[in-house]
Amino acid sequence: MTDYTPPRVWTWDKESGGAFANINRPIAGPTHDKTLPVGEHPLQLYSLATPNGQKVTILLEELLEAGKDAEYDAWLIQISEGDQFGSGFVDVNPNSKIPALLDRGASPPQRVFESGSILLYLAEKFGAFLPTEPAKRTETLNWLFWQMGAAPLLGGGFGHFYAYAPEKFEYAINRYTMEVKRQLDVLDRQLATHEFVAGDEYTIADMAIWPWYGGLVLGRAYGAAEFLDAGSYKNVVRWAAQIDERPAVKRGRMVNKANGPLEEQLRERHSAEDFLTKTQDKLEGAE
Amino acid sequence: MTDYTPPRVWTWDKESGGAFANINRPIAGPTHDKTLPVGEHPLQLYSLATPNGQKVTILLEELLEAGKDAEYDAWLIQISEGDQFGSGFVDVNPNSKIPALLDRGASPPQRVFESGSILLYLAEKFGAFLPTEPAKRTETLNWLFWQMGAAPLLGGGFGHFYAYAPEKFEYAINRYTMEVKRQLDVLDRQLATHEFVAGDEYTIADMAIWPWYGGLVLGRAYGAAEFLDAGSYKNVVRWAAQIDERPAVKRGRMVNKANGPLEEQLRERHSAEDFLTKTQDKLEGAE
Repeated sequence: MTDYTPPRVWTWDKESGGAFANINRPIAGPTHDKTLPVGEHPLQLYSLATPNGQKVTILLEELLEAGKDAEYDAWLIQISEGDQFGSGFVDVNPNSKIPALLDRGASPPQRVFESGSILLYLAEKFGAFLPTEPAKRTETLNWLFWQMGAAPLLGGGFGHFYAYAPEKFEYAINRYTMEVKRQLDVLDRQLATHEFVAGDEYTIADMAIWPWYGGLVLGRAYGAAEFLDAGSYKNVVRWAAQIDERPAVKRGRMVNKANGPLEEQLRERHSAEDFLTKTQDKLEGAE
Repeated sequence: MTDYTPPRVWTWDKESGGAFANINRPIAGPTHDKTLPVGEHPLQLYSLATPNGQKVTILLEELLEAGKDAEYDAWLIQISEGDQFGSGFVDVNPNSKIPALLDRGASPPQRVFESGSILLYLAEKFGAFLPTEPAKRTETLNWLFWQMGAAPLLGGGFGHFYAYAPEKFEYAINRYTMEVKRQLDVLDRQLATHEFVAGDEYTIADMAIWPWYGGLVLGRAYGAAEFLDAGSYKNVVRWAAQIDERPAVKRGRMVNKANGPLEEQLRERHSAEDFLTKTQDKLEGAE
């Protein structure tokens, strides 16, 4: 048993916190004045290529692939440097998390925050990837909201304790591993009888779920695929690999990426041509 | 430092888990065959008066209060007894969580799961508590999604480690306390300049957030109000107390309540008259 007894009133010890302790704070609001950059397109995205960030860049690239006029400027928010606490960012997202979107095509400009809200906003704005038939629309939204409630226990629970906490806490690892495996099994059963998460159409529910749970089974998250026996979720693996092949998904994963191999990074994105340069980098890197 | 090293592949130890270990499982799907009861109204709700359950019963009572034809049958799902793993329930919500809704007014009957999805579905179906003006609608959805992503770290993080885990793990308590205080501060800043969470209208965003964060500052959750210094979030307290006075909220909190004082319990709800009996119980109890 631990010998810790919580105090009557909690106080902030800035030394505690493990990895990312420097960006975790018990208070909200801006820490410094900083105006956000603005590009030429109506849609201004302020983000980073985490799973939550990828949701939106994948949707934007899919919209462009589908011929929609969804051109956007994507600006890099370095959360490890506290960019999310700048005053301009907090105006767009008072929760200081990426992704955050400003739609200058609306009058006055519309802020949209929370990745799920951004996906819904863009799907409705461009009339794509959210079925209009009521039953299909509702099922898509069921799974979109499912992802929003599930992933905090994956990212903020499992991922933290398995990969980032300063010690390996057995109780917490067991707790969140059990939940993540249950979530993977929920998806696996759904994908056993459906091509995509919400049925026979590729929707924003897939785009919300894939960066998190697809990333897990494709071995890209937390080094945890073997620990979770991710390969046993065969339907999730089938679905994840299928989506991974989509050109828009490949592009979406690169946007606002600021780590890993240089040829995979596209720290800012302002036009389709930005990817061509990167493809060239890759070809040259392969020589 | 702990001396625990995670195994190569995680396996389920059914003895671990702390409180609620009996209902936490690493696999999804039904554990037994059980048909759900069905009442006379189009809307069939299968739920329990947890914060997520209260969101929906508060909305349904608000809709009725506003004169909408939102009559419903609310059936009790005893999660401590595993009702959520019955085959009929899993058909409505493959995620085995309350609340779950079946709309028999749709053809074929429509399943709706995840509390946020149910709120959005009902608000759109009845045309209430979700502004139609685009900017207000988007801001409402921003905060609805905010709640869906934030509360798992409150309920599945803070609440578990502060109130339910078998030991007091200092690291985990600090981690989630910091986050919950940050979330309370996000709300407090928003409510400093807005009567309701998404602006000047009472919306489904308030109904989603109030059962969790209102409950915290009103001292109803985890015995943690002092620990969190909840009274310092004065705007949240003002807003929480204001909503707490609404008749529909008082009724919504009673529906599917199966613990606490008997006169506050309404284990099933099938008509407005069910509350009158309870009011009578209360009057008699006060004698």
